[in-house]
Amino acid sequence: MAAPIDFYFDFSSPYGYFASLKIDEIARRHERAVTWRPYLLGAVFKITKMQPLLDYPIKGDYMKRDWQRTARLQNARWKMPEMFPFAAINASRVVYWLNDKDPALGRKFAQAAYHQAFGEGRDIVSVNAVAAVAEGLGVPQGDTLAAINDPAVKERLRKEVDAGIERGVFGSPFVIVDGEPFWGADRLDQVDGWLATGGW
Amino acid sequence: MAAPIDFYFDFSSPYGYFASLKIDEIARRHERAVTWRPYLLGAVFKITKMQPLLDYPIKGDYMKRDWQRTARLQNARWKMPEMFPFAAINASRVVYWLNDKDPALGRKFAQAAYHQAFGEGRDIVSVNAVAAVAEGLGVPQGDTLAAINDPAVKERLRKEVDAGIERGVFGSPFVIVDGEPFWGADRLDQVDGWLATGGW
Repeated sequence: MAAPIDFYFDFSSPYGYFASLKIDEIARRHERAVTWRPYLLGAVFKITKMQPLLDYPIKGDYMKRDWQRTARLQNARWKMPEMFPFAAINASRVVYWLNDKDPALGRKFAQAAYHQAFGEGRDIVSVNAVAAVAEGLGVPQGDTLAAINDPAVKERLRKEVDAGIERGVFGSPFVIVDGEPFWGADRLDQVDGWLATGGW
Repeated sequence: MAAPIDFYFDFSSPYGYFASLKIDEIARRHERAVTWRPYLLGAVFKITKMQPLLDYPIKGDYMKRDWQRTARLQNARWKMPEMFPFAAINASRVVYWLNDKDPALGRKFAQAAYHQAFGEGRDIVSVNAVAAVAEGLGVPQGDTLAAINDPAVKERLRKEVDAGIERGVFGSPFVIVDGEPFWGADRLDQVDGWLATGGW
């Protein structure tokens, strides 16, 4: 099996959510694994001068419409969280902590957290909400709460974000296939094509 | 035949160029006409707080790569103009002036100007360059030069840009199908689907 593809996403990103519903199926078709890498766009925006989508007048209204339309097109559950955008630092830490135990568990947690945020419009910000999501996958709440406050786990996320910036990751979702970067849920068809052909 | 679809674009937009190579074929498949509406993103950016793509650190580098990759995927001629982004006010005026004479001529001029800018990487900014493009379609240079300086033509473009802002057009390309807005060259598949089904 060739190298895994890197799937960068911010938990607060609707397009990251939409891509998260498809990325594994695309990778599987080409016998690839996916490394799920949560990312903090807030840290990147300081460098790129970009802003959260809804902060742009006119564009923000279009975005809300496009999310609903995309959800209908993908047959995806969709409900905007009351608080948006939100800071997903706790959930992001938990993914890396779980990834190191078992990548499948890290992925399942990420999928469950995304579903709770944009499928159900519920909180995934507070430590308790995050620990409850993990508990649904059999992870004791106390373990998750301890991991969120573990300096090593905090440092791990910081390093992942820095490494992402270093690799040119500036948005969500952002997929890297054998060194080739693809930004946006609307580039997944190209990711599929690139995996099939080795590039064009 | 149902109402034409509106194709908004800025001549300085690479994604507008890529979309311009496909939009007529998509519309024709559904027996629709296309109204080609050049647009000045600079005017919109003042309201939306957006900036030209290459002004964003990190994102700008990705964009250049994505344009080349898109060109290869579409089998489109591709050469970045030396001056980029550029102000396409003169070429934009000419499109509306020609559209009023003959929409097919307006479209042919827009296609020729886009080809010169991004297919050949050549100037379409100066009045002389613009007049030369029109001359290639049989329009006397003197007529084009006069049109560019005609207060009525200038006013026409201003009104079109204002009307576009009023309709929520904030990027290039931007397609409106029966009131439904689609932003981006990567939304053309959805434009195609919307035309086929009447929406989802």
